[in-house]
Amino acid sequence: MPHLFYGELAGEYVLLDERETHHLKVVRHKVGDVVKITDGKGNLYICKLVEIGKNRSTALIEQSNLIERPQENPITLYVACENWDRLRWLVEKSVEIGVDEIVVYKSKRSRSFVEKKEKIELVVREAAKQCERFLFPRLSVYGHIDFEKLKGKVVILHKEGEQASLEDFLAPVTIVVGPEGDFEKQELEKLSQKGKLLSLGKKILRFETAAILSLCLAGFTNGRI
Amino acid sequence: MPHLFYGELAGEYVLLDERETHHLKVVRHKVGDVVKITDGKGNLYICKLVEIGKNRSTALIEQSNLIERPQENPITLYVACENWDRLRWLVEKSVEIGVDEIVVYKSKRSRSFVEKKEKIELVVREAAKQCERFLFPRLSVYGHIDFEKLKGKVVILHKEGEQASLEDFLAPVTIVVGPEGDFEKQELEKLSQKGKLLSLGKKILRFETAAILSLCLAGFTNGRI
Repeated sequence: MPHLFYGELAGEYVLLDERETHHLKVVRHKVGDVVKITDGKGNLYICKLVEIGKNRSTALIEQSNLIERPQENPITLYVACENWDRLRWLVEKSVEIGVDEIVVYKSKRSRSFVEKKEKIELVVREAAKQCERFLFPRLSVYGHIDFEKLKGKVVILHKEGEQASLEDFLAPVTIVVGPEGDFEKQELEKLSQKGKLLSLGKKILRFETAAILSLCLAGFTNGRI
Repeated sequence: MPHLFYGELAGEYVLLDERETHHLKVVRHKVGDVVKITDGKGNLYICKLVEIGKNRSTALIEQSNLIERPQENPITLYVACENWDRLRWLVEKSVEIGVDEIVVYKSKRSRSFVEKKEKIELVVREAAKQCERFLFPRLSVYGHIDFEKLKGKVVILHKEGEQASLEDFLAPVTIVVGPEGDFEKQELEKLSQKGKLLSLGKKILRFETAAILSLCLAGFTNGRI
């Protein structure tokens, strides 16, 4: 399968950074090769490679197509967490399944991942390239969070919630997942005022399993799958 | 949350192996403590620890409850794969979401994992304990496979299949996932005669994402979630 690269638009060229340049070399591309590049904003560029440098490369656009537009009814995932491996995996899967926005936040009982924003962005980029998403999901990483800002339809995954139904995940929807040690009482009270508490059955699910399950249901219900 | 341990029944005692003994020590249990132990066959034993040895421990059963019985309409997952990390993750999530049987097989284009059966079993055990499943999913690992043996309702995840619907995952159902490099033509022909090819949308999904997505839908449709 032909690889998809990521680059930034610069006039009639697309510029590829160090990581993408490395990817070009790994799959043995040469100057003159025609490659597929996305800007992560919905566009697919068919380009001819004009320079492969040490840390960056340049490609000349031969054809440009707007493939993906922002969803009118987005699916947003808020996730608090403590474990990098589980977060990394969750972000990768969320992108594949079709999330539109990911918000990683520090709740009172979770560790902050603010310093990892760039690493998370790379996970988003790699997953999006892999599954050929041309419009990359938006990503925010907050060291603290004000739940007051949550707007629209909000569902909070929680063991004390009502049994979830497919309708609960009709977009636009914001799915909120707490930390492994659960929300603090005050956080949960604030959240309960912003949306509906939903439970995903009787089993004890890890936070990333609960998140991915709800994204699967949301993805299916909203025709993303 | 109280921990769940795994042990084998021996008369009025339950015997815990090296791994579980280590787990006992990590959470600082002492002789005389009351613990929850499952045999992975549906039973929950409330036990008093009578011996914590170097490599094994013994617990006396004080109360015994049959909590889970085999599902009349099981969900079975056949998965071929090449990457240990992705398989490990997939097995863990499958157990949490509610699969009843996992078959890891070597297709023509995938690597064999026969020698990893014990490692996979441990992943099943740890995931089942974590989410408090008392009846562990059955596991088989095959170095080669005869698709002729597939019986009952079979769905094969494949990009050339029909768009999947929730009804497709009504149990009893066997979900077949191919290797990263796809089935060989002959394998796919044989499989097509045994079941329905299903596609999960237009995006290119990794094998483990496709598997987990279909298990989420099956779990939801069949009331496991």
